[in-house]
Amino acid sequence: MSKADPDLAKIVSEIAQEMSAREDRGRVASYIPELANVDPARFGMALIDLDGHVHLGGDADVPFSIQSISKVFTLTLALGRIGDRLWQKVGREPSGNRFNSIIQLEHEMGVPRNPFINAGAIAVTDVILSGRAPRETLGEILRFMQFLADDETIFIDHEVAASEKRTGFRNAALANYMKSFGVIDNPVDNTLGVYFHHCAMAMSCRQLARAGLFLANNGRNPVSGHSVVSSERARRINALMMTCGHYDGSGEFAYRVGLPGKSGVGGGILAIAPGRASIAVWAPGLDETGNSHLGRIALEELTKRTGWSVFGH
Amino acid sequence: MSKADPDLAKIVSEIAQEMSAREDRGRVASYIPELANVDPARFGMALIDLDGHVHLGGDADVPFSIQSISKVFTLTLALGRIGDRLWQKVGREPSGNRFNSIIQLEHEMGVPRNPFINAGAIAVTDVILSGRAPRETLGEILRFMQFLADDETIFIDHEVAASEKRTGFRNAALANYMKSFGVIDNPVDNTLGVYFHHCAMAMSCRQLARAGLFLANNGRNPVSGHSVVSSERARRINALMMTCGHYDGSGEFAYRVGLPGKSGVGGGILAIAPGRASIAVWAPGLDETGNSHLGRIALEELTKRTGWSVFGH
Amino acid sequence: MSKADPDLAKIVSEIAQEMSAREDRGRVASYIPELANVDPARFGMALIDLDGHVHLGGDADVPFSIQSISKVFTLTLALGRIGDRLWQKVGREPSGNRFNSIIQLEHEMGVPRNPFINAGAIAVTDVILSGRAPRETLGEILRFMQFLADDETIFIDHEVAASEKRTGFRNAALANYMKSFGVIDNPVDNTLGVYFHHCAMAMSCRQLARAGLFLANNGRNPVSGHSVVSSERARRINALMMTCGHYDGSGEFAYRVGLPGKSGVGGGILAIAPGRASIAVWAPGLDETGNSHLGRIALEELTKRTGWSVFGH
Amino acid sequence: MSKADPDLAKIVSEIAQEMSAREDRGRVASYIPELANVDPARFGMALIDLDGHVHLGGDADVPFSIQSISKVFTLTLALGRIGDRLWQKVGREPSGNRFNSIIQLEHEMGVPRNPFINAGAIAVTDVILSGRAPRETLGEILRFMQFLADDETIFIDHEVAASEKRTGFRNAALANYMKSFGVIDNPVDNTLGVYFHHCAMAMSCRQLARAGLFLANNGRNPVSGHSVVSSERARRINALMMTCGHYDGSGEFAYRVGLPGKSGVGGGILAIAPGRASIAVWAPGLDETGNSHLGRIALEELTKRTGWSVFGH
Repeated sequence: MSKADPDLAKIVSEIAQEMSAREDRGRVASYIPELANVDPARFGMALIDLDGHVHLGGDADVPFSIQSISKVFTLTLALGRIGDRLWQKVGREPSGNRFNSIIQLEHEMGVPRNPFINAGAIAVTDVILSGRAPRETLGEILRFMQFLADDETIFIDHEVAASEKRTGFRNAALANYMKSFGVIDNPVDNTLGVYFHHCAMAMSCRQLARAGLFLANNGRNPVSGHSVVSSERARRINALMMTCGHYDGSGEFAYRVGLPGKSGVGGGILAIAPGRASIAVWAPGLDETGNSHLGRIALEELTKRTGWSVFGH
Repeated sequence: MSKADPDLAKIVSEIAQEMSAREDRGRVASYIPELANVDPARFGMALIDLDGHVHLGGDADVPFSIQSISKVFTLTLALGRIGDRLWQKVGREPSGNRFNSIIQLEHEMGVPRNPFINAGAIAVTDVILSGRAPRETLGEILRFMQFLADDETIFIDHEVAASEKRTGFRNAALANYMKSFGVIDNPVDNTLGVYFHHCAMAMSCRQLARAGLFLANNGRNPVSGHSVVSSERARRINALMMTCGHYDGSGEFAYRVGLPGKSGVGGGILAIAPGRASIAVWAPGLDETGNSHLGRIALEELTKRTGWSVFGH
Repeated sequence: MSKADPDLAKIVSEIAQEMSAREDRGRVASYIPELANVDPARFGMALIDLDGHVHLGGDADVPFSIQSISKVFTLTLALGRIGDRLWQKVGREPSGNRFNSIIQLEHEMGVPRNPFINAGAIAVTDVILSGRAPRETLGEILRFMQFLADDETIFIDHEVAASEKRTGFRNAALANYMKSFGVIDNPVDNTLGVYFHHCAMAMSCRQLARAGLFLANNGRNPVSGHSVVSSERARRINALMMTCGHYDGSGEFAYRVGLPGKSGVGGGILAIAPGRASIAVWAPGLDETGNSHLGRIALEELTKRTGWSVFGH
Repeated sequence: MSKADPDLAKIVSEIAQEMSAREDRGRVASYIPELANVDPARFGMALIDLDGHVHLGGDADVPFSIQSISKVFTLTLALGRIGDRLWQKVGREPSGNRFNSIIQLEHEMGVPRNPFINAGAIAVTDVILSGRAPRETLGEILRFMQFLADDETIFIDHEVAASEKRTGFRNAALANYMKSFGVIDNPVDNTLGVYFHHCAMAMSCRQLARAGLFLANNGRNPVSGHSVVSSERARRINALMMTCGHYDGSGEFAYRVGLPGKSGVGGGILAIAPGRASIAVWAPGLDETGNSHLGRIALEELTKRTGWSVFGH
């Protein structure tokens, strides 16, 4: 289905150069200083194929705040914890609203539409927490990420988390609102604390691509050999990334890139080419829907040159 | 990526038998007599691969009302007519609402979210009409479908169209509402007339699978050799089917089936397995989101047994 | 409760002079030429007390398009026709949305919130029509108005009605939408035809104030002696004018003026001072909520100088 | 305007008897034990005219939780504190939604529609707090109420306040949401703490009617002679009570009762007959809109028998 033998090293390198040169870079998130101060000229890209070959471009080894990309991994953990019972607390449909909209919650009795909008990710975090201490839960999430990426240097940026907490009134509104419908079990502050901290994990493109590799290979990390989830679950997580991974820009991402992907307000995107590779890009400037502007364009270029869109080459 | 050499004939035949035997059949659409009177025991399935091999199951040669599945083909025609200017009149995002919701139109200045909800499909129809006589436009749509399926027996069921018109007040509301924002150019009655009639095309699963085959093969019908659209456009239409093809059940369809698909209230679904096959199923009973209940289950079984989900095998 | 013996002639005359001199005049409605061409410098005012004394100011004898003010009188007719059964088709609560919003209809099953928003007034018109010919119904409405104002020169401006019909797609959307829920009984075109025509009645401030006088006197016209409605019904119509008479500016009108009132997009307002007088003002320029800018200010001045607010002097 | 010389003592006494005998009593609020345990058979009524005559019926001297009725008095305090600048933080229009809806806040940038829905009252409380200690502010509110009612026995029920706080996630959502738009200045917990406590004031009908008497007499308490607010402000507070005082049942209250009024979920209603009297009723059972069922009926009877509706006798 793909173009024969794409030269991945060359493609990644060229895309990184092209993206670094572009002048349309979007707008860096400005609601907390730690994100606002990131240099918009940054661009990084990492691609790891199923043989474990790594192709890097630009700032592929610079850690950035993965923010909402963590939601892919907390979803994986929550499904591991309670399986399909999770879907009593969160839906599986695109929201048709901005990432932090509260309107839908009122119409649908406090059940968020999917695990990748803020409300849904808070509900998922609450499931992982489930009565334990926030610190313990957070440790588990961090270790899971280090395990997936096989890299113990991944860390949580506590200043980012503290800033998020100071300004996170909208997320506090979402959490309290869900709590009023009984969707949140733990004390709101505990759930939000874990949420803000796992969004504040700092990772490089290389680490992120590696952490997501199991999703490109039917649930098993082909490098380490670890089986993370069943192939059915891997497919389903990919499906959710496709339909809901870019908030109210998910349709656009599917239309232009044609891969499952999850973006974060720090400018990162994790994209999965099933059966082929895991790819992470980072470009701090965002478009109007809150997704990385150049990150999306870079991935669009990638699928054009490789023929890896799941919708045809 | 797929399971080695799935025996497609056997798979289709088995699924058809299983579906025919099931007792949970959903509820047949009841708002017009022509749909309400269809036997809920019907089940048909047709799969055509890129070599042109045809595999049939159940009532695969019985014509049914394709209803909203026609929207895939009117979208194709409208893009052929005015290209990407179409996207000034209709968006590319999932709606997060029911197929006939009018709320989103008010918040977004009369521009429907995507070409597959009713409002979007009416706007697309208006583009195809563009000042010509409704009868002429309708003839063009019908001939396009006959050309794609290579079958001149495809026809429009005028009684269905007349019934839709008699009861189509909600669609009239959508059309007038868009007209008030300048999104509809033609007289509302003309646009609605064409819309109701192309939704009333009657086709069998075999015809429908064949008409959609170009989408599985990067825009070119591998049997006739006709190039219908560019490979990029084929990918993009598939992407829209994935994120928006099942109204407010699109996320669920992606999650369970993992293929681009478009459903109709007559109980049909057209699904595309890129690089492999075009599949049509028909089971008249619907689920709560207005999509074919057994049709979706049949396609879920198909991807399970073939490993054809675009999200991994 | 009022200030002792206000000199009404002087007050009306002074307010008319002050309003004519003001430079902030709002924006004249521009969606049809007949309204757009009205001179924004116009200002008229008429006050008729329960003894039948008439006080005029400015252009009090110039006919203007009463538009939505007609809704007070069609409500009166519909209540006369079917009594409290009317409230199965329309609510009695402020809408919290613009005059032509369709959102609320979707959430509340096609039942408009009150008889004074467009959807509600269309539903009320449908009740009056109830199976008869539009022309006959329209004749009845016109004669009712002539009877109330004791003036046979009141007429319907058919050019205004024709223009409204040509551009009234949003009202057509509302009517079709309600029809889809079974709230509209007659063919949509008939109901809309009557609606557009009764909104196109042309009346002067003098005529309008006289037509509304029964509402200031517990349902009986003190000049003609005719009993129009019961005192209970008069109170209730006044209550609806207070809470819903100025669309999404109703709270503001109550806050500033303190009288029941109904505005029209032609720049007119009918206000009722229960137990005292009926007042009509006309100033074509509108504020952001679609209500007459200087009309509201004139009435605010009136209640300041007379102490006639129902909320205290 | 009123019926000549209504025998108020007799009317109040008869209504209290009639209401005590009725079997349709609505449903007592059940979200906190302190309210759920109130006897639904209770009914109290107190009417104080401008001469200071007091007429009592039923349980007129039993204290109950005034809940949202406190919002009339905190509005009065906030207007005294910052005057019309208050209207930058809260609107003056009916909401068209339930008392605790959050939808409108999203569409209107965190500015609540009026001071009597929960969000608006929280914003008003925040203004009164304005940087001071919660305890101090709460003392001020309590003393203001004691001063208005000339009764130092009025108290805050701290158990009610504590229960509200334990379950008040929806109010916490509203407050955090407004905070995210900068509408709330103080720490959310402080503002909510004061809000929950002033809603937990316990008062009898007699005390409440007396506290509201200034609103019936153009801002001046006719018994004590104290001038509380200007006559213009008294009119305006009454207007807000008329259009917004009963949440999404405000139109109904105006339609049936015809007086400005404010209800509380404890079953109390304060109603103002401008120029005549202040009336408080208490019946714990609520209707679907969250307002006292028999309280509204009692006041409807009162205006029928006295002719005191502001909309005509």
